[in-house]
Parts: sequence; structure tokens; C-alpha cells
Amino acid sequence: MAEQHIDNLRTIVGDGNVLLGPEAATFESDYRRVFHGKSLAVVRPGNTEEVSAVMRYCYVNGISVVPQGGNTSLLGASVPDATGTSIIVSLARLNRIRAIDAMNATMTVGAGVTLSQARSAAEGVGALFPLRIGSEGSCQIGGNLSTNAGGTAVLRYGNMRDLVLGLEVVLPDGRIWNGLRGLRKDNAGYDLKHLFIGAEGTLGIITAAVLKLFPMPRTVSTAFLGTNSPEDALAIFKLMRERLGTDVTAFELISSDAMTLVLSHLNDRPSPLETPHPWYVLVETSSNADQEAAESQLVGVLSDALSAGYATDAVVAANARQAADFWLIREEISDAQTQTRGSVRCDISVPLSCIPAFVRDTTAKVLAIEPATRMIVYGHVGDGNVHFNPIRPADVTAEVFVRTHGAAMAQLIDNAASELNGSISAEHGVGIAKRDELLSVRSREELDMAWAIKRALDPRNLLNPGKVLPALPE
Amino acid sequence: MAEQHIDNLRTIVGDGNVLLGPEAATFESDYRRVFHGKSLAVVRPGNTEEVSAVMRYCYVNGISVVPQGGNTSLLGASVPDATGTSIIVSLARLNRIRAIDAMNATMTVGAGVTLSQARSAAEGVGALFPLRIGSEGSCQIGGNLSTNAGGTAVLRYGNMRDLVLGLEVVLPDGRIWNGLRGLRKDNAGYDLKHLFIGAEGTLGIITAAVLKLFPMPRTVSTAFLGTNSPEDALAIFKLMRERLGTDVTAFELISSDAMTLVLSHLNDRPSPLETPHPWYVLVETSSNADQEAAESQLVGVLSDALSAGYATDAVVAANARQAADFWLIREEISDAQTQTRGSVRCDISVPLSCIPAFVRDTTAKVLAIEPATRMIVYGHVGDGNVHFNPIRPADVTAEVFVRTHGAAMAQLIDNAASELNGSISAEHGVGIAKRDELLSVRSREELDMAWAIKRALDPRNLLNPGKVLPALPE
Repeated sequence: MAEQHIDNLRTIVGDGNVLLGPEAATFESDYRRVFHGKSLAVVRPGNTEEVSAVMRYCYVNGISVVPQGGNTSLLGASVPDATGTSIIVSLARLNRIRAIDAMNATMTVGAGVTLSQARSAAEGVGALFPLRIGSEGSCQIGGNLSTNAGGTAVLRYGNMRDLVLGLEVVLPDGRIWNGLRGLRKDNAGYDLKHLFIGAEGTLGIITAAVLKLFPMPRTVSTAFLGTNSPEDALAIFKLMRERLGTDVTAFELISSDAMTLVLSHLNDRPSPLETPHPWYVLVETSSNADQEAAESQLVGVLSDALSAGYATDAVVAANARQAADFWLIREEISDAQTQTRGSVRCDISVPLSCIPAFVRDTTAKVLAIEPATRMIVYGHVGDGNVHFNPIRPADVTAEVFVRTHGAAMAQLIDNAASELNGSISAEHGVGIAKRDELLSVRSREELDMAWAIKRALDPRNLLNPGKVLPALPE
Repeated sequence: MAEQHIDNLRTIVGDGNVLLGPEAATFESDYRRVFHGKSLAVVRPGNTEEVSAVMRYCYVNGISVVPQGGNTSLLGASVPDATGTSIIVSLARLNRIRAIDAMNATMTVGAGVTLSQARSAAEGVGALFPLRIGSEGSCQIGGNLSTNAGGTAVLRYGNMRDLVLGLEVVLPDGRIWNGLRGLRKDNAGYDLKHLFIGAEGTLGIITAAVLKLFPMPRTVSTAFLGTNSPEDALAIFKLMRERLGTDVTAFELISSDAMTLVLSHLNDRPSPLETPHPWYVLVETSSNADQEAAESQLVGVLSDALSAGYATDAVVAANARQAADFWLIREEISDAQTQTRGSVRCDISVPLSCIPAFVRDTTAKVLAIEPATRMIVYGHVGDGNVHFNPIRPADVTAEVFVRTHGAAMAQLIDNAASELNGSISAEHGVGIAKRDELLSVRSREELDMAWAIKRALDPRNLLNPGKVLPALPE
């Protein structure tokens, strides 16, 4: 039976685009090798019609489907279960920029276009596609949409959800919904695209999207600051927003433990600041003013932040290379942790006003469990999103630390966020890892509605089954 | 039976909050008196729990419900049908600002808070709630959400959908979904709020919302321009976006016939420009620069637009009063039409790049039907939204013009927009008036999905039945 399915799928997409065994293996684990599964086959359709034909075949034959983009998700959404009964549908070959309309400031792209490819195409017409996440070289637009990717420019430009105007989606029965509209205003009926954005492939397979482009800012300025506490960091943020408004594009907090870890990971690179500080802030502004005017405005605000005692040191990047160096520090924290191993990764958000209390109280609770824990705390504080990742003391192995403390620390961090009306998953989604935790943080009304939508659109439960939606108690 | 329902509803909301007969009449027609219906009663709950109890009562008893905010919608969504079997649930008493969190830049408001009340509350903490539409004194936040209101600041700040972080909704069975989260990043499951935004009350009753606040811009500059054509207007827009980026907050096009009509309506007010022009543009920028710097930047771009011949004249408002005068011209066009009577009102959007062709070709088609038609064309061209409203020649009565040409002109305008991948309803929604037209502009896949959602969330079809969703042919 499996053999026959594989033959039939080969007929649809061509022999070379059905992968089995060792060729399929890299698709069956996530890139961090945390989640592992087994597929019936990896199918690589070359266009929307082939996705449709594959999906129709699976619908008729009751085969479940795991859609996969760049496979860079963090919570297991892109990996099949262990039964070997699902196929993985890789969208990587849908990698064509279909159209760019510079006047309309839109770009129509296939789901398999990588984020960096999309950014480059926008730059090619002098425009900005503003999504910015660490995996931009390998993550794909379809995956960015399916997880509603966030990243470091959300403060100014919004999440992926805010950066899309239209979608093309293959529905569970194989029908194609053409919602590729490039309109900034369209109230002719329900806005269905939002169902598929952030649904992690459980409701349909996104095959193409119309993305919004933005004017390229004339000037980008970057600064690295020292500060004493998250309270003071927030005071700096408030000052900057008041004075520079939406020009504040990124506002990233970094704990001293995170700084120490990442500088060591970067071959003992020196800090941008001369002395150590309890906390650091990386800030970026974008402006239509010229370089001199924009920088003088930024320097003015930073001076006031220093005078007020909110900041304890500050340096503005002298050029693009230095700005890139500042960003490298921020961006390499994640890899520094992966390499060190033994971290408890949490991706919470809380209302901005609650960040200081969250960091203070949750740090105390973690240290009460294991006082030598290093607090790798960083994130997009300007939008309330904190990556709060306790990591093993230098003299404790990853295995021992995670086995002994992992579950308890993760739970207390998520609980602390929930108690402050926060989210247990700010930008990483749900996948399989956070699925059952939704039972305790989402109301029955909300879970019932989610299931009602799932049943309405995917009545045979073929699309990425077992992901996102927890089984409900009777 | 009806008497008993009324008595039971009185028990829930209090005698004074169930209106019948003449007291109910103003709720049974829209404010323009275009749509008329009959209700069993108008029920005015005082809080979310009362909305829930009313809805539960209606669910058990199979009574349909028309939710109503400020009753300023244009296509009949807020008006019941003629049977007198539905109740109108007015949300007007849910008019409390529940909370403002200035640091988090959010505000939690009841559905019955008016837009101007919300804007004032934001200003009270030095922040901006940016939605700006003509009816702000009477329209309510719940209605703004249910129709995904647009208006004149969408270019910079987005539609109502983009201005909300969380919702509280009473579901068709009376259960309350508390989704009042004030988070800019939250990927813990499906984002259900988008289902209710723009659904015109067909899926649930929005009772409260967490709105986003924005930094108040330091400087607002306003200019009035003359130009020869929509092509030239777009060239000005492109120049401004390249030079001023997202500072361009509003970019409104006005036809010469619209200008003539509105100036006459405003007691023969003089034009801001010395000579007549074929087209006019009203532009607003917001900036963090000081007044002098911002204006000098604006004047620089306008000079270049004049030198390039894109603009034929331009005047920058000298002060806030003059800016308000410019805006009054734009805002009174709608009332000028209402008073003149005999206009065919269309609210289309097309990709920006298609605006010149749309205006040129569609004007020619309208004038081919009746050469003396006055072309009241205006709108938010910066986001592709054109109000394209042919109005009767001065010597033809409204009745004759609308009877003779109304349907044909409306149809050709909507067709022209559809052919350019545009929308037949950019910001006014669907209601009852545009419902059946969806059959020709939306695919079967899309309409099937919309109905699947409707059946999943409102299986007894009690919420605003007959609105938005057209009956599908077998």
C-alpha cells in the first residue's frame, strides 16, 4: 500500500521529487535535532497545481500531511510523528518571486522563497521587506507566515501577519484558494487569510503570498547602551518613544550573563562598552532625516538618558560595520546557548509595564532552585517579548541540569508570564512542544473555537495532525 | 410569545433598557435612512454579563440578534430585516474606558465607547489612537471593529484590524470569550480575534477591546495641492514616500467636480488654491522633527513636485486652523453628496499602480451613459481606496438619475475594480447591500470557507442572519 502511494505521488511530482530513507532523514528532524519523526515520504511539488494534486491524493486516501518550509521552527511543528504514515510536503521548490509592483509596494512570492531572497528582491526595487530573524538565510516565507514570525523589527513594522496582504492556499481537499490580493483596504467579506497565518500548517498549505514593501529608511542609526536594570531600560525606551516616535525600530535587552556567554562564544570579542554593566540595550532607529540630523537627534536622547541615570554608558555605531558588530552580539546569543547546551528556553511576552517585575521575580525563583544558574535573558523588550533562558552553571553538565531543573524552571517561567496576562509563546508558536500547555493557559471557550475552526476547514484532520491543538477533556 | 420574550429580556437588562415601538424606531433604520427594518425589541445591556445573558436567552429560544453600535454603517449591516422577529442588541451602554496602560501603550475599552471618546482618552495620557473617520462622534469601537473601519490615516497606521491587540466577545450561545490580551507578540495558538473583526456581527458580539496606542507625533504638517491627473498625483505620492517614508500619514485625492460641489456646500467657501485645477491632493505628514525642520522637509519635496510638473500649485497650512480648514473640505464631500442627492456611491480599491487607468477608463464609461454626470471622485489614494461616486447633473432629479442609471453605473464601477484585482468594498463592508455581489467577485472556495466558519461558530444562524454571507447556489 505504502509502495503504491509512493508510486502515485511520483507520478504527480516526478520521480526525483519523492525522497525516501536517508534522503528523507534531514526533513524528519528539526534543524536543532530536538524533534524526530518518520515519514512515508518527502514530496517536493514544483508548483501550486502539484501541491493541489498531492493534497487531493492525500485527502482521498486519508494520508496526513506535514507541510515544511525551511524546517527552522523551534517547537516541532515541521516534523512528523513517529508512525511513518504522514508525508512531508516540502515547499522549497516554490521559490519564485512571481511579481513585484513597486508603485503598489507589494511583492508576490512563492512559499518556498527564503526570507533573505525576499529581502534582496525588495532591495532590488529600492524597497524594504522588514521581517528580520536570525534564520533568514534558510527560513521560507511560507514558514514565516505559518508561524507568524516576529524578530527584531516588530516594534516598528509588526509581525509577519502585519506584512502580508494576500495568500494563495491549498485547502485540505486539494482545492486552491486564490486570495492573492494586493490591497491595503478590502472589506468585502471575512478576512480569511488570518486563519492560515500562525496556524502552523494545520488548516491549509500556504503556497504563495502578497507581501507589503516599505520605503527604505534614509538613515539607520545603532547604539549600544549599558543600564542598571530592566526598569531603567524601560525608562530609556519610554524616553526614546516620546522623542523619536515610531523611528525606534529595535530595542533589545541583554543580560550580563548573556553578554558574557556570547562574547566568549565570539572568540572573546571585546564588549562595545569599556566596563561591564548589569544589563545592556541594543537600539536601532530608522529615519528620513539625513545621517547628521538623525544621529544628532539620537545622541540628544541618549545624553538625556545618561543625565537622568537611566543609561550608564552609551556608544553610537560610527559606521555600518560597527552597527553590524553590535547586531552580531545580539544575534549570536542563540547559537552561543545551543553550543553551551543545557539551557531552558522560554519565549514569553508580557505587557511592557510588567517586564521589570517579571524579570526580577522570575530570576529570584530560578536562582532559588539553583543559585549558580546563568540567566541568559534577552529579547525584543520594545514589544514585550523576553527570551528568558536559564542555562546550566559552568560546572554542571547539560544533561544533569536539564534533567534536574528543566521542567520545573520552564513551568515556573511560563506560569509567571501567564499570571501577568502574558503569553507562553510570544513568537515561536506551539508545534508539539507547547501544545498541551495550552490547556492550562487558554480558556475552554477559546480552545473550543479553535477546534470548531479546525473541524470546519479540515474535517478529516489530515493537515499537520497533533500540532497546535490539544486534545480536550470531555 | 413575543410579549413573554420581552418580559424575560426586561428581567435581564431592566425595564428601561428594552425599547419598543417609536422608541425602537431610530434603531431600525440606518443614520442615512436608506435601510429600514423592524425589531421585536431593542435591548440595551449594561455590561458584558448582561450581553451574555441576553445572548443565551436568544440562543435557547431561537431568537436572532442584530448587534448595533453607533448605527453609522453604510450598507445595512446594523439594521434588522422586516419580519420583526430579531432583537437589536445596542452596545451603547458598554461605554466605559476600562483601563489605560501608558507604558504598554494600550487601552481597554467597552464596545460602546465612541471613537472620539477613545481618541480623547488616549490624548489624556499623551498618546494617539490613530483611527480617523468622519463619524467619530457617534460611531463606536465595537462597530469600528466589526466593519474593520479604515479612514484617512490607514496609510501610516493601518485599518482598525491593525489597531487592536485583544477582544472580549460574547459567543452565539452566550458564553464569554475573554481574549483581552495586550500583547504585541502572542503566538500561542490560532489568533481568533481576526475572525470577529470585519465580520459585521455575524459570528459573535464584541463587547470590549484592547487598543494599541501610538506616540503622539511632534509635528503634523498639512498641504493642499493642485495637479493635472491621477497619474501626476501618484507621481507626487511616490516622491513623498521616497523622501518622507512612513511620515506620509494621509494622501487624499479630490476631483474638480467634488471640489466644486463641496465648496458650494460650505457656503461658497473659497478654494485654498487661487486657480482651479483638474485634481487636488490633500496631504498630511507626521514627524518627530521640530515644526521648522519638518516643514522645510515637506516644502522641499513639494518644490520638487512643482518643478517636475507633477503638482501645479501647492500651499502648506500656516497653522492648525488652516489645516483644519483643508480637512473640512475633504470631510464634507460626503455630506455635500448626501444633501445634493442622486449619487451612485461606490467604495472600491485597486492596486495603487492601477488607479490612473481605473479613474480614466471608468470615468469614460460613466460619461458615455450620461455625459453631464458630475464625477465626485475622492478618497484615500495612498492606500488604493477611491470613493468613485457619479452624481446627477444639476438639472436632473435624484430620482430620475438613480432610477435610470444607478444600477448600471454601480455595476460597471464594481466590475472595473474587480477586473483590476480590486475590491468592491474597500472599507464600508458588505452588510445587506453588497452581499449578493460577492457571488460574482469571490471564488466558490472562498465563499465555502466563509460559510464553514459561520456554521462552525454560529450553528443556529442567530447572529445578524442574512448579512455578509450570500446564499450559495447548489
